[in-house]
Amino acid sequence: MQSHHIVSAYDEELKFLTRKIAAMGGHAERMVDQSIAALVSSDIALAQKVIGDDAVLDEGQREIDDKAILIIAKRQPVAGDLREIIGAIRISADLERVGDLGKNVAKRVVAVAEGRHPVSLFRGLQALAELALTQLKEVLDVYASRSVERITFMRDRDDQIDAMYTSLFRELLTYMMEDPRNITPCTHLLFCAKNIERIGDHATNIAEAIYYIVTGEQMPADRPKEDKSHRVIAKAAGE
Amino acid sequence: MQSHHIVSAYDEELKFLTRKIAAMGGHAERMVDQSIAALVSSDIALAQKVIGDDAVLDEGQREIDDKAILIIAKRQPVAGDLREIIGAIRISADLERVGDLGKNVAKRVVAVAEGRHPVSLFRGLQALAELALTQLKEVLDVYASRSVERITFMRDRDDQIDAMYTSLFRELLTYMMEDPRNITPCTHLLFCAKNIERIGDHATNIAEAIYYIVTGEQMPADRPKEDKSHRVIAKAAGE
Repeated sequence: MQSHHIVSAYDEELKFLTRKIAAMGGHAERMVDQSIAALVSSDIALAQKVIGDDAVLDEGQREIDDKAILIIAKRQPVAGDLREIIGAIRISADLERVGDLGKNVAKRVVAVAEGRHPVSLFRGLQALAELALTQLKEVLDVYASRSVERITFMRDRDDQIDAMYTSLFRELLTYMMEDPRNITPCTHLLFCAKNIERIGDHATNIAEAIYYIVTGEQMPADRPKEDKSHRVIAKAAGE
Repeated sequence: MQSHHIVSAYDEELKFLTRKIAAMGGHAERMVDQSIAALVSSDIALAQKVIGDDAVLDEGQREIDDKAILIIAKRQPVAGDLREIIGAIRISADLERVGDLGKNVAKRVVAVAEGRHPVSLFRGLQALAELALTQLKEVLDVYASRSVERITFMRDRDDQIDAMYTSLFRELLTYMMEDPRNITPCTHLLFCAKNIERIGDHATNIAEAIYYIVTGEQMPADRPKEDKSHRVIAKAAGE
């Protein structure tokens, strides 16, 4: 009876980590979604809200770290349980970074709102954000279900995100060359796009952590993923 | 005798982590240093070398992770030793990211080399890199010596890095507005600058991990650090 009780308490501790990760994931998704909404509609108040919301993820990560270390010290877990706990530490670090990226987008809302830009400028960014958020949502679903066989899909989607980012990078450079008044807002939008693209990388990190939790193996490293924007050389008119 | 032997082997395992972190740190510093040198001298071969070198850090992180988990499972450490091991996992993740940032700079060498730019363009970036590398070196020294009382200096230096980055951001925008032919190379340089600035953040993360290893406490969170570049609004001539 006593032993049963101890096991249940231990189970509860592990479940605490899983629940907390799910909550952090939902919070991070919302932050990113709202940061893009704030950018598109020049909504400074919403941007401020997103910036404030980041503290929740910092606190969440700290809580998971503290709890994870307590559980390891108290329960001395091995194998699957140990991987579960170390995995939670890794995933919460990635989710905290996703929140930072959403906050970074929100911080640029004021600078971008200053100019008058065609709506089409935002369209690419919205599409990119949608793709990155879908990927994040899917990887959090895999975390909940532990069905790692779905994880290889992640990488294909990450390739899509990289391709879309590179094309957006090129498009924004073109706007900048067309009119110097576009340079400041488009530069900020370039950084926003880069932030969104990074969310895809974090989703991939999370996928790798889940794969490790479930299988005890590192995910095979055939990961050719990278955005190609570093190669983009756009020529100014007459150059 | 047997017990002494076991303790020594355990000690050796912990020292393995410390040595590996030091090696990763040196490698990451060198990558960043060489990526900037490649950028300034348009040295494509050196840039390629840096890009290839990144695999060493990926492998280092994997090795530390695997070893850390093995040690936890085998030795069931508590308190200081457990913090040491979890700290090594965190620090190696930050160093792996620093290597990625160096690699990202190296990847842009080709695109930047395309244009003819004044040397002054690079001077700001070199100064920024020097500051970031000093900070990284200092924090790795603190890791080696465990003298956390020096850790508060880190944050002041991070503030310096952020201020220098913001001024460089503004300068690069101005070059872009002066001549549309500067837009492409300066955009890549902006991203390089951002990558270097991020190294400062990782050095701060490492400082926090060391503080935690040594004291068992989270470093007090009065961290007002942020770059102000998201607020920069540079006006084009005649705007």
